[in-house]
Amino acid sequence: MEKLGAGNKKIKQIQSWQRSAKDRREAGIFIVEGTKMYKEAPSEWIKEVYFTQKVLAELGEPGNVPCYLVEDSVFEKISDTQTPQGVLTVLRRPEYDIDKIITGNTGDEAQLLLLLENIQDPGNLGTILRVGEAAGVTGIIMTKGTVDIFNPKVVRSTMGSIYRMPFAFTEDVCETINRMKKAGVTTYAAHLHGSEVYTEYDYSKPTVFMIGNEGNGLTDAATEMADKRLLIPMEGSVESLNAGIATAVLIYEAHRQRA
Amino acid sequence: MEKLGAGNKKIKQIQSWQRSAKDRREAGIFIVEGTKMYKEAPSEWIKEVYFTQKVLAELGEPGNVPCYLVEDSVFEKISDTQTPQGVLTVLRRPEYDIDKIITGNTGDEAQLLLLLENIQDPGNLGTILRVGEAAGVTGIIMTKGTVDIFNPKVVRSTMGSIYRMPFAFTEDVCETINRMKKAGVTTYAAHLHGSEVYTEYDYSKPTVFMIGNEGNGLTDAATEMADKRLLIPMEGSVESLNAGIATAVLIYEAHRQRA
Repeated sequence: MEKLGAGNKKIKQIQSWQRSAKDRREAGIFIVEGTKMYKEAPSEWIKEVYFTQKVLAELGEPGNVPCYLVEDSVFEKISDTQTPQGVLTVLRRPEYDIDKIITGNTGDEAQLLLLLENIQDPGNLGTILRVGEAAGVTGIIMTKGTVDIFNPKVVRSTMGSIYRMPFAFTEDVCETINRMKKAGVTTYAAHLHGSEVYTEYDYSKPTVFMIGNEGNGLTDAATEMADKRLLIPMEGSVESLNAGIATAVLIYEAHRQRA
Repeated sequence: MEKLGAGNKKIKQIQSWQRSAKDRREAGIFIVEGTKMYKEAPSEWIKEVYFTQKVLAELGEPGNVPCYLVEDSVFEKISDTQTPQGVLTVLRRPEYDIDKIITGNTGDEAQLLLLLENIQDPGNLGTILRVGEAAGVTGIIMTKGTVDIFNPKVVRSTMGSIYRMPFAFTEDVCETINRMKKAGVTTYAAHLHGSEVYTEYDYSKPTVFMIGNEGNGLTDAATEMADKRLLIPMEGSVESLNAGIATAVLIYEAHRQRA
């Protein structure tokens, strides 16, 4: 296995991918770190793997994929984490068909979708993918203003759900909402001024929850197109809930009704 | 109003409080930053306020409390945030009676409690206070191994709920669970190997949800004492939920049942 030094151009390439969303996008790749993320990665997505000697000895050399050995000191330079775990994997980006996500492609199961409008916090987006998988969400559609899903912090906080949750992007949220309606999906806007408490509706049919930006909520355009505005009741003096928390409450209510 | 320079001993004191949980504890204080946290602070808790000139002009001088003016450059030195908001408040710590939290002191409302065992992430603890207030939690008890609730990151992520949520600490979690049982509170352990789905129980009576450490969950000692072990069902390959997310799902189910 080839051993790469700090000055090697592949090492410099990884460093630029770690820094730049644009470079990652142009290369059509994303990066994951750690043993768990390496082991769970779909094999057909893996392009390259970088190991330290110690972790290579533990995990063994993978077959049929280019892999490289680097010194611990070099690994620190390519890692995005404070305590590097000694294995870094470069993956090709998955591509899902937005129409299949909207119409559902699993046959007997009603779609349970999320439409995320301009979510900004990487931890929130990662958490939403993770709890989304757990609650049985069948797909996530994001506006272009949403934080890059391939951002290392987002990827890390999905805890592997990025491998399993279908997702797609939209440049025109209103057009996407219209397509959902045509596909028989009831569109629910999570809104601070919702008209009805979220527990009052039936989510056993095809459902999408629309979740807005942390500071500003959903845009008026998106809110006005929704079939229903949901209210999550809040006691005390709480003004709003974290976007990940609000999502979790809604989708686990849907899960409860579908169980 | 007195204007303090960078070398003033009060400025140095604030800096050491920002750094050291021990110093804050020994002084019996905690620190909040920003306009929202200043405005919502219970007046009887406020010990001192530090302003920049600009923010003092906006907010006006508070009555009956020592306050100090500092240059923007000095404010940056005492602030824990990347974009200082120009007002920093030193508050005395509230003290709540753990027995009152356990037995409930509001008369007609059944207790809805959280028992947190060694939660480590400041953001998780802050989020739990915030969503706890929103869902009608009546009090929170934490083990001594839980992250310092007066840590600046915890305080900030409570978004003001630290002013309104009663909380207390325990050195002996088993003794606390026993006291809860004697007070007629049903004790539910959130557990990856729970025996029953969380939606199967009735939380309209006095209830405590026990939430464990992010990595290790509840200790065996605490789990074994619980009346019931709850399972939050997870689809796909998700191994666990974030502690804040799991708490939110449970307490909003209790809120739904109590509505």
